[in-house]
Amino acid sequence: MGELTLIERLRELIGPPGPGTIMGLGDDAAILEPKAGLTVLTCDAFVEGVHFRRDYDALDGIGWKCMVANLSDVAAMGGFPSQAVVSVCVGSGVSEGDVLELYRGMLRAARKYGAEIVGGDVVSSDDGLIVSIALLGVVDADRVVTRRGAVPGDALVVTGELGGSEAGLAALMAKLPVEGEVGAAVRRHLAPVPRIAEAQALIDVGTPHAMIDLSDGLSTDATHLAEESRVGISVREDLLPISAHAAAVSDALGLDPVELALRSGEEFEILVALPASEVERSIEHLAAITGTRLTMIGQVVEKGRGSVVVGSDGSGRPLRRTGYEHALGRER
Amino acid sequence: MGELTLIERLRELIGPPGPGTIMGLGDDAAILEPKAGLTVLTCDAFVEGVHFRRDYDALDGIGWKCMVANLSDVAAMGGFPSQAVVSVCVGSGVSEGDVLELYRGMLRAARKYGAEIVGGDVVSSDDGLIVSIALLGVVDADRVVTRRGAVPGDALVVTGELGGSEAGLAALMAKLPVEGEVGAAVRRHLAPVPRIAEAQALIDVGTPHAMIDLSDGLSTDATHLAEESRVGISVREDLLPISAHAAAVSDALGLDPVELALRSGEEFEILVALPASEVERSIEHLAAITGTRLTMIGQVVEKGRGSVVVGSDGSGRPLRRTGYEHALGRER
Repeated sequence: MGELTLIERLRELIGPPGPGTIMGLGDDAAILEPKAGLTVLTCDAFVEGVHFRRDYDALDGIGWKCMVANLSDVAAMGGFPSQAVVSVCVGSGVSEGDVLELYRGMLRAARKYGAEIVGGDVVSSDDGLIVSIALLGVVDADRVVTRRGAVPGDALVVTGELGGSEAGLAALMAKLPVEGEVGAAVRRHLAPVPRIAEAQALIDVGTPHAMIDLSDGLSTDATHLAEESRVGISVREDLLPISAHAAAVSDALGLDPVELALRSGEEFEILVALPASEVERSIEHLAAITGTRLTMIGQVVEKGRGSVVVGSDGSGRPLRRTGYEHALGRER
Repeated sequence: MGELTLIERLRELIGPPGPGTIMGLGDDAAILEPKAGLTVLTCDAFVEGVHFRRDYDALDGIGWKCMVANLSDVAAMGGFPSQAVVSVCVGSGVSEGDVLELYRGMLRAARKYGAEIVGGDVVSSDDGLIVSIALLGVVDADRVVTRRGAVPGDALVVTGELGGSEAGLAALMAKLPVEGEVGAAVRRHLAPVPRIAEAQALIDVGTPHAMIDLSDGLSTDATHLAEESRVGISVREDLLPISAHAAAVSDALGLDPVELALRSGEEFEILVALPASEVERSIEHLAAITGTRLTMIGQVVEKGRGSVVVGSDGSGRPLRRTGYEHALGRER
């Protein structure tokens, strides 16, 4: 199998470039039309055995999830994704068909959320499969939301439900039968969605001060948001929207669902700090526009008060980076 | 070593974002100001043991070369590089200091050629070091040059000299003493430069019809250009600007310098098809503006005549993709 055969098949799979892309695959670089607004640029790498396992999902699903992680980053800035370039490192035991299947999944996610793949590189490695995606997006200058704008008094809200992704992974690792709530948790882990429409709806209806997507887990990502905004954060355990899947898997495996919800990474929900006065109408608007639940889970406090998780008995413990940081951590 | 310590040190190393970058590292994505002109986007991945070896060069040099490969792709479109995002997969035996040194080299190359690093991801892998770079650039709409515009009758010209990079690699593999011309070949292999100013000068003084950077070797890249332009190409052996380094290493190792020049990858010279009437003034202008040699090495012919290398005796043989395609080939 030579590079060119595969590259030719990838070009066929990807098809002609969409509007806004003048030159896609097949040259030294892609050429894109400029868009109104600011440019968003993000990248993420995914390593077999660290970020995904081929015995847990097919490559189409793995491709989907890799792309979603990048789409989610653009969503969390208030942006719309547009074009991606992809590097795939192919170890022994990865066939041409495998790479095509991976691309099919990436393309499926990209297209569903308005983006396309405009370039790529396929190289050999001595190891398993490694996927690196860089994604461009666009955001109106007056709609950018960073991690930095949270102020004391803000409410902390989160889209969707928590704990399902980590629960799904725990179920896979424990080889629980993939059915019922357990099956739902596994699907949640393997096939997340980016909250692009949700982020837009929140910006439409209010003035989010800071946003971050939950890729490393609520504890970790809330800590990032607090640090970048130079504030403290207080999360209330009793308010966490723990998913039924997470609860079911917790029951089956004897896990603490609250800890699961705090630690669970790759949820790709959006954590938002916004004025307390906007919480009610944000919840209503999000439900009306997207059908997605929005839950107030705590508040932003002065930095000096630190970041805490408040238990149901009112006692606080420090909010910490936990669990789900893959990077250099090898916790998985 | 946790992710955050390293990320913090990388942020310190990278420093505050330059003009045109509103938000660099530290958020879900970078936010960039739009630029006048079209956007160029490219990506390349580099795998330890396939694209580089740590016993051949320090990580600073490896970082330089990885960035140059991307800068060169932007150059070959007629563009100027602007912002990069970088994913680094870190295997066992790679320290925090190693990652910083790699970044220093990438930053050195980016900054020298007008670009900056605005985002990145550091993840663990089970293998060696893998670097994936995506690079943005900008190009005026009326100055884009792709691989597709070559027409029969065009002259084929190339910047700089050929063979040095492969000669340097051969010298490293044969453990020749790194001194004199051999040392120059090794430096040529390890520390290439992107031909950004050269590409611009050629566009300033003439109307290049097609350009490609020599990353896979003249034979392979000329074939790519011919295929994308749907033409044939005739390269004359006796016109090839074989570097003195390549000749010296060929002597020492009993290699054929012409074959070396045809096969040598990672030269990062620019191969250009332009109107024959523009050759003379392009050569003069390039020398005057950049000091870089430009050499006519052949011509573009009708597709039906195929692509050939014409020997010094006038006999032709097919121009083929050869040697230097890393991707999935594992030739290295």
